[in-house]
Amino acid sequence: MSEPQLKALASRDNAFVKRLHALAHSARDRRKLDETVLDGAHLVESALAAGVALRALVVSESGLLREEHRRLLAAAPAEVPRYRLGDALFAHVSPVDSPAGLLATIAMPASTPSAPGDASLIVVDGVQDPGNLGSLLRTAAAAGIRHALLGEGCAQAWSPRALRAGMGAQFVVRIEEGCELLARLESYPGLCLATALREDAHPLYELDLRGPVAWLFGAEGQGLSPALLARADGCVIIPMTAGIESLNVAAAAAVCLFEQARQLRATGTIRGVNFPS
Amino acid sequence: MSEPQLKALASRDNAFVKRLHALAHSARDRRKLDETVLDGAHLVESALAAGVALRALVVSESGLLREEHRRLLAAAPAEVPRYRLGDALFAHVSPVDSPAGLLATIAMPASTPSAPGDASLIVVDGVQDPGNLGSLLRTAAAAGIRHALLGEGCAQAWSPRALRAGMGAQFVVRIEEGCELLARLESYPGLCLATALREDAHPLYELDLRGPVAWLFGAEGQGLSPALLARADGCVIIPMTAGIESLNVAAAAAVCLFEQARQLRATGTIRGVNFPS
Repeated sequence: MSEPQLKALASRDNAFVKRLHALAHSARDRRKLDETVLDGAHLVESALAAGVALRALVVSESGLLREEHRRLLAAAPAEVPRYRLGDALFAHVSPVDSPAGLLATIAMPASTPSAPGDASLIVVDGVQDPGNLGSLLRTAAAAGIRHALLGEGCAQAWSPRALRAGMGAQFVVRIEEGCELLARLESYPGLCLATALREDAHPLYELDLRGPVAWLFGAEGQGLSPALLARADGCVIIPMTAGIESLNVAAAAAVCLFEQARQLRATGTIRGVNFPS
Repeated sequence: MSEPQLKALASRDNAFVKRLHALAHSARDRRKLDETVLDGAHLVESALAAGVALRALVVSESGLLREEHRRLLAAAPAEVPRYRLGDALFAHVSPVDSPAGLLATIAMPASTPSAPGDASLIVVDGVQDPGNLGSLLRTAAAAGIRHALLGEGCAQAWSPRALRAGMGAQFVVRIEEGCELLARLESYPGLCLATALREDAHPLYELDLRGPVAWLFGAEGQGLSPALLARADGCVIIPMTAGIESLNVAAAAAVCLFEQARQLRATGTIRGVNFPS
């Protein structure tokens, strides 16, 4: 197999280098160019595995020495243009402080209307930290959730930071951004459960979670909007020790979603996904 | 009750302002000055509740309008010096991008040798992201864990970012930093469990976790050091759906520690902490 051709770029003034820099550093430019950046071999591999078309592959001089980078450069379809940058220039266009030396660009994925049917899903209201949002998606994916509805106030699911925290979850979970959450939940047939500190909340471990659940997660600080809280069939609390009254939203999601997965496993109920045993 | 005196500061050249800026922005300066910064009302309140002595309280002009800030300014001991800064100058000395308008300085807490005895604890090996470390401590505190051993390669537990993610957990969990982890575990009487993807790992939900457990968490990417893995009595995996093979370390900790808490609650076993019911 012949080595794929790498086009060498050496200047910050090059139009493509400028474009990469803008994509890495500006949410507005990502929207305008309708494109985003995948940083590192893991995300590039996840995209290829999910059949997502790469627009370009970019490797640094020292990144070229890594076996996994060379493998991905060889594995990507032949028509994907490949670029080679010196380490300093690569650092200039990378969205992270310590770049590993490989990145790819992809078209900004469309926000596809999610049709969860009677599957469980997460409903995210106003989580503004891209790291928290990415971690939430990663946890949901690992727990077997395949649908996410994100409300207006949420961070961009496809920003480099959210992608990095998601570690490929964005390619596994069907994500609908900018949702009218209330309207989307109107005909949902399962339980709508809000994670909220309320007098009438049910301890997580006392609930039967084996049916479909729409898990509502709100922003840290504000919590869920009153309208969503009103829509919920009930509130859940995670029993905690005195002195610490709340968890980070991604940690709370991990506890809730894996308790549901535990209950499903314990009864042999599998909702369309395979648990490796 | 008379309003506490606020000393107005207006220049970046003021020595105390320079000191605040250094504390907020440089790990080296925090070590050199042996001091750290608590940003926001929640952390200041947690410190006061834990009996930690504040060295100074700093409020911004707009922060002064907030009821909870005025309450904390009034509640802190009279001898704590209080400063008032214009919003722009406050933003200059704040460790966060969107400052709420209140901060405090405290002496860098000493790394106190932790004596977990037969209590459960977390053992953290090389988690370099301060947000992950803080979230891990917060989750541990909420799950009833009161001891944390942090190895050499970990992020600073008392940096502003780790404090922010910890949301007061640093004042509840006894933290020993810079530990010789292997030596500290030598006489531990409970189970040492490593969270690691290994052939011989036990699914989390099949383990009896009602006794004391030392939970070993490693860096993302590298995982646990071989010596710690060798010390573990066993490896645990969290059963996940195919396609996503790992969780963020803080999310993994949330699943493990709350599964232990669930088992303890289910059997009425309480390890020295009170679960509100």
